[in-house]
Amino acid sequence: MARTVEITELLLREAQQSLLETSMALEDVVPVCEDLDNAGYWSVECWGGMAFNSCIRFLNEDPWERLRTYRRLLPKSRLQMLLRGQNLVDHRNFDDSIVRRFVEKAALNGIDVFRIFDALNDVRNLKASVGAVKKAGKHAQGAICYGPSPVYTIPVFVDLAQQIKAMGCDSICVQDVDGLLTPQAAYDLVKGIKQTCGNDTLVSVHTHSTTGMTMVSLMKAIEAGCDIVDTAISSLALGRGHNPTESVVAMLEGTGYESRLDIERLHRIKQHIAAVRPCNGEFLEHPIVVETEILQHQIPASLILNMEYLLKGQGTPHLLDEVLVEIQNVRRDAGYPALARPASEVLGTQAMFNVLQGKYKVITSEFADLMLGYYGTTLGEKDAEVVDKAATQANKPSITCRPADLLEPSWERRRTEALALGGNGSDEDVLTYAMFPKTAAQFFQTRTAGPKGIGKESNEPKAGPEPAPGESRTYIISVNGEEHRVIVTPAQ
Amino acid sequence: MARTVEITELLLREAQQSLLETSMALEDVVPVCEDLDNAGYWSVECWGGMAFNSCIRFLNEDPWERLRTYRRLLPKSRLQMLLRGQNLVDHRNFDDSIVRRFVEKAALNGIDVFRIFDALNDVRNLKASVGAVKKAGKHAQGAICYGPSPVYTIPVFVDLAQQIKAMGCDSICVQDVDGLLTPQAAYDLVKGIKQTCGNDTLVSVHTHSTTGMTMVSLMKAIEAGCDIVDTAISSLALGRGHNPTESVVAMLEGTGYESRLDIERLHRIKQHIAAVRPCNGEFLEHPIVVETEILQHQIPASLILNMEYLLKGQGTPHLLDEVLVEIQNVRRDAGYPALARPASEVLGTQAMFNVLQGKYKVITSEFADLMLGYYGTTLGEKDAEVVDKAATQANKPSITCRPADLLEPSWERRRTEALALGGNGSDEDVLTYAMFPKTAAQFFQTRTAGPKGIGKESNEPKAGPEPAPGESRTYIISVNGEEHRVIVTPAQ
Repeated sequence: MARTVEITELLLREAQQSLLETSMALEDVVPVCEDLDNAGYWSVECWGGMAFNSCIRFLNEDPWERLRTYRRLLPKSRLQMLLRGQNLVDHRNFDDSIVRRFVEKAALNGIDVFRIFDALNDVRNLKASVGAVKKAGKHAQGAICYGPSPVYTIPVFVDLAQQIKAMGCDSICVQDVDGLLTPQAAYDLVKGIKQTCGNDTLVSVHTHSTTGMTMVSLMKAIEAGCDIVDTAISSLALGRGHNPTESVVAMLEGTGYESRLDIERLHRIKQHIAAVRPCNGEFLEHPIVVETEILQHQIPASLILNMEYLLKGQGTPHLLDEVLVEIQNVRRDAGYPALARPASEVLGTQAMFNVLQGKYKVITSEFADLMLGYYGTTLGEKDAEVVDKAATQANKPSITCRPADLLEPSWERRRTEALALGGNGSDEDVLTYAMFPKTAAQFFQTRTAGPKGIGKESNEPKAGPEPAPGESRTYIISVNGEEHRVIVTPAQ
Repeated sequence: MARTVEITELLLREAQQSLLETSMALEDVVPVCEDLDNAGYWSVECWGGMAFNSCIRFLNEDPWERLRTYRRLLPKSRLQMLLRGQNLVDHRNFDDSIVRRFVEKAALNGIDVFRIFDALNDVRNLKASVGAVKKAGKHAQGAICYGPSPVYTIPVFVDLAQQIKAMGCDSICVQDVDGLLTPQAAYDLVKGIKQTCGNDTLVSVHTHSTTGMTMVSLMKAIEAGCDIVDTAISSLALGRGHNPTESVVAMLEGTGYESRLDIERLHRIKQHIAAVRPCNGEFLEHPIVVETEILQHQIPASLILNMEYLLKGQGTPHLLDEVLVEIQNVRRDAGYPALARPASEVLGTQAMFNVLQGKYKVITSEFADLMLGYYGTTLGEKDAEVVDKAATQANKPSITCRPADLLEPSWERRRTEALALGGNGSDEDVLTYAMFPKTAAQFFQTRTAGPKGIGKESNEPKAGPEPAPGESRTYIISVNGEEHRVIVTPAQ
């Protein structure tokens, strides 16, 4: 009787990225894979996004090997990855020869579902990867990068969904990276997509719990017909992360909707992750896990922190408010791109330059690229004067074509370079190198040392919190072989 | 056009109790009172529950003086308190002379809205206080203690609401202390109350965010016609606390419901509380802020922790699972009281005795009182055999009358005692003494020293986290009884 709501579990990838800013050691999640594989998820997200870079930069771990491990440990599951369209797993455009090969190899190594988005919602930037996914016989999920603005209204997003569907995608994802999707917007958007793209079009909703209200958005999306929602197991949820899996299961009780999830397995996963999760993430350092200010000014807290940091470095921390206002202006001038990476940082840096140096006196090369169409097109109209200034300062013309059309095929060149720098001859190594040439070259040299397991240290038995002033702690201290009983009291 | 949803702010009382286990120093919240008073809340909860005891036990502060301060600082607001029916602000029954005087004095000192509940949902335990509130010309809100069980179904709760309404209450509160109220139950219950008690009956919903799903329950309650919901400002929300005020405002955007709250004022309150809140609460020590296990076994995490602690003390930590199962049995035998204090602890302790000593071999006096009706009646039938055992071991009979009917008026006696022990002659001091004789007697002696401001230390410049390599810290170290001033610098 009840309609089944499917769940995508984010524990293995994005939950770690959102709350710990890197990936947990593989050995820490291996013990929960059997439960993950049998819990009844629609898919398990485990690869892509920042995780690829994390692996070679911080963990000394081959991301392709991690994927193959997941494939082996989760034989029954649809493995899902986040692919940034023409940017793949970085924030710059790659030529189609690299895009096609990357998708083909990801599919071969184990990915079943490719969630593909473009930060500017320029559908031309999705084309090559969607085509490659279909060619590989896998599931292409086209994602809308959600974020309201004067140009981005519900009908505009619905139209975008239709374009994505027409491109051959198997499902549509509403992707809300900052928790901006209100319950009513979730309802209207999913309803609109279902009405326009057809009721049998699979719709998935991805949101973050940042603003504290998106559990309700998930419920409203489900009431509007949403088929799949994204969640993270509760011991790695909330804050800038995601809504808790078990809570979503509970939320559906008696509603006429139900998940297929096995709650006993979920509890085991939760307990294990609670025991092993690194405890040094920013989640713990910032007890405030609700950020509703973003609903007023649309600027993600991460960007504010970044601006704060940069302004402090310039000795001008008092200019923060001015910079935040200027971000809005710069965003308008740029045609209202969504405040997702890379656009958010490009706008932030330019706003800072505008405040510090005078309006568009210095235009960063990234902002020039954004204004001149090298990231793709924006829906809003760009300020013509600023476009001119960008062209002059960057000394290059505006483009209207798909940016990747300007890129030469680089596969063969990358292959030669990768081999010369210690790549093992596999196509996977060539792709790792093509993504992050410098980091990859270094990784090729250190790979044999094996994964470093960042985040592991914090799980070792600790002394516990520093004693409060006046509170004592007793130690046995051995000095030159002689043991002393020592009582330590912080002096205040 | 949009229907207004009213908000009760819990920041000043229950949010502190839930997340910090005591009250913040008054001086820390004084700066937000003007914003609280003008933000557009229906009421501001600021007194009662554990806060009364906290004041005299931990803060060396007169709870009545705190109330008068709030009254002065929040002149436009409805001040609200939580009153535990015949238990007032403790967990034992007081005679009607005390109950009447307590309510009268609370009203005189500033309380406008009295939320009154009984942990067993025995409406006879609400009668005296509801009568006193009406006599004082104040708002009596009768609360249903929510918690599903084989005997407590939606129709039973609706019937209870009707009894409370018939008693003369001005509004009905659905009070869910463990986050057990699912969205569908919230909808059905509010709908049922509105249909049965009349659409013009004010309904308030109080829930905790413990299980991660109750934002949705608030939304569903609102859709069913709920007039008032309880929230806490986001910098003191979530976990075992409450849903964030600003998030609830955002959740309503575009829905046809709206709050009257001023978001700018909310942000200022949030920022201030974020800056001053004590950072040593359990919230920080337990990064896992979602507890969905309770939906399966109905046992609050606080009770589990308590049992764990007691069993460890007995050297039998391995018996925890057995005790948790036994709690269910004991609860059934006791006629399914809600697992709220004091019943939860009474059942937990008895379950532990049953496991350690044999089934009902030793019956605690509290459990005997529960079985024999001295807390009030339960809706479920009690196990007759266990009732007999309780009567034998406690050597007293079962009662069916209202428990407080057995209590002699104690006002005059308490007045004499309070005066003898240092009370200042005010009725308020007599009441403080009547609530907590021992603690009050001590407080009367130390009162002149003024509030201690527990929780303040943690805001003072702290030793902070472990020093970084190269950074030094100074300690007073006592070695074999001799003190040394020692500067410690991490090596590396």
